[in-house]
Amino acid sequence: MEKLVHGGDIYAARQEYAGEILDFSANINPLGVPKGVLLAAREAVGECAHYPDPLCRELREALSQALGVPEDWILCGNGAADLIFRLALAVRPKRALTLAPTFAEYAQALSLVDCQVRFHPLRREEGFVLTSSFLEKLTSDLDLVVLCNPNNPTGEVIAPKLLEEIVGTCAKRGITLLLDECFVDFLDEPERHTLLEKLREYPGLLLLRAFTKLYAMAGLRLGYTLCSDTALLEKMSRCAQPWSVSIPAQAAGMAALREREYVARSRALIREERAFLKEGLQALGCEVFGSKANFVFFQTPCPDLCGRLRKRGILLRGCGNYPGLDDSYYRAAVRTREENERLLAALREEMRL
Amino acid sequence: MEKLVHGGDIYAARQEYAGEILDFSANINPLGVPKGVLLAAREAVGECAHYPDPLCRELREALSQALGVPEDWILCGNGAADLIFRLALAVRPKRALTLAPTFAEYAQALSLVDCQVRFHPLRREEGFVLTSSFLEKLTSDLDLVVLCNPNNPTGEVIAPKLLEEIVGTCAKRGITLLLDECFVDFLDEPERHTLLEKLREYPGLLLLRAFTKLYAMAGLRLGYTLCSDTALLEKMSRCAQPWSVSIPAQAAGMAALREREYVARSRALIREERAFLKEGLQALGCEVFGSKANFVFFQTPCPDLCGRLRKRGILLRGCGNYPGLDDSYYRAAVRTREENERLLAALREEMRL
Repeated sequence: MEKLVHGGDIYAARQEYAGEILDFSANINPLGVPKGVLLAAREAVGECAHYPDPLCRELREALSQALGVPEDWILCGNGAADLIFRLALAVRPKRALTLAPTFAEYAQALSLVDCQVRFHPLRREEGFVLTSSFLEKLTSDLDLVVLCNPNNPTGEVIAPKLLEEIVGTCAKRGITLLLDECFVDFLDEPERHTLLEKLREYPGLLLLRAFTKLYAMAGLRLGYTLCSDTALLEKMSRCAQPWSVSIPAQAAGMAALREREYVARSRALIREERAFLKEGLQALGCEVFGSKANFVFFQTPCPDLCGRLRKRGILLRGCGNYPGLDDSYYRAAVRTREENERLLAALREEMRL
Repeated sequence: MEKLVHGGDIYAARQEYAGEILDFSANINPLGVPKGVLLAAREAVGECAHYPDPLCRELREALSQALGVPEDWILCGNGAADLIFRLALAVRPKRALTLAPTFAEYAQALSLVDCQVRFHPLRREEGFVLTSSFLEKLTSDLDLVVLCNPNNPTGEVIAPKLLEEIVGTCAKRGITLLLDECFVDFLDEPERHTLLEKLREYPGLLLLRAFTKLYAMAGLRLGYTLCSDTALLEKMSRCAQPWSVSIPAQAAGMAALREREYVARSRALIREERAFLKEGLQALGCEVFGSKANFVFFQTPCPDLCGRLRKRGILLRGCGNYPGLDDSYYRAAVRTREENERLLAALREEMRL
């Protein structure tokens, strides 16, 4: 079967390691599924003799209230990744531009529609920060630009002023812009970075959001996209089966939107532990870049850290398969203090410091 | 948002009718989700902080044992409908042939890849039975043939001998054959009708199966396809995101395969109630066709039965939007005796007999 290129494959790890797996390879909230979400999803299992609501009516209503956007600007999917594929199928771009490195599924989805994908390199010497040189790449022969803010795997943000120039330039040149904000909630000031307020002004802008990471419900599959071009969303909805979002996922999503205290607690934890993990890695001689979300991106010359930690039941995301990176780059999720300490201790031993 | 063309939309009905909705519009096992499946899905919700296994390793192992086919002949999806879309994307047929009437998602998925879809009409005067005239339509300019056995919405089967000729002719002419067996388990003799034993001989044959109907778990989303062309399955797996099948769905599927007593009980119930419902409809002057699975397909000149039953909280599937049918055709799921009696009583009153 297909080769797995992403983190989070605890299933293979469990076959190799008898103890409990500590997964730093998937960027998921270490507080786990909120209790209210667990209860709602379990309760909803009892409804599963029915088909799910293809239009996710109740969930979209709840999202509309939570985000302050009209219901018909919202399309829900079987995780955010599902919506990347549907967008590629709906827009069928001939030429697209994205970053290197970034999340692999953008190019994977675009290859399905024979799209020529250009990669704008993020440079190590610039700390993998997107600079205004990107604006020159926004040529009018492009149909689609895909950006991730904060970016995966670097955790670096696009400066708000540059992002505004990008969205304006895309609009002027008739380029659809998919902005993946799946990790925006983990930033210290999400409201400074999201383009939620720009949706009305720019109908060619789509925001991608997930419940996966913030509410630790990756296994339930729920994401959504926001766009004021309702005709495009309708087209996207026809690019897949009608019943993409399961009943437990819809119920979990509605429950998640009520978890305000959990979100506040998560943000505080991530802020503190991110700093702790960064400092710990730097103390081990690792070079840390970006890392403004719930994961830390670093480089170390110490070889095969993934394989060595795996033998201890700890999963790290090796970044060698990202275009523009090599095996010396790693990504680690920010987890709880005790777990982060275990990671650092294991690294310390493997690095023989 | 998109217009809903399928049955099972209890969500709209609930907004119009205060009482409990009795849904005959979706073809789901009236015994409801088996207890073992409910427990397994609820338990699995607790695991949902992880990503699902993209390869569905445990589930495919269990399916392999249950069906007696190798694990790498199995690809799981987010319901069977998901796999129809993935097949269209993987094969990208230029010309395809299917039936009229049949399940609408085949043509919907094929339209995504600009496939020219031909429809072979099933004729009322032949009782909507597929005849050998279909063999002449299997011309070598076709890339794909899609059949549903038993067919939806007619519930009619393809004679085993004709089906064998079809699969042989497709193989000879290099045509991929997708055979949707989502309702085969509800036939009196499934083993006489499934092409499971033909997979090894015909690598161009794909069988489509669902957990949705037999185990009444439509809301959890789980289907699979079987094919001995493992390269095609790998291609299909790359035509969508890696995490299509949620953790609760994978767990539910494994539990469902242990529900042998439930399946036996379901088959007996469906056999008996199908006969009861058919007789009852005939006694009301309806003409019944096919109806060999867990739904009954009938025609009556009495207008707008759907709208009239809906006011009573009963959902029926009007078949006016199937190519080749009109508003005088209906499909009703086979449910429990008490529910079937309620349907017949309501119809009796509406038909003023």
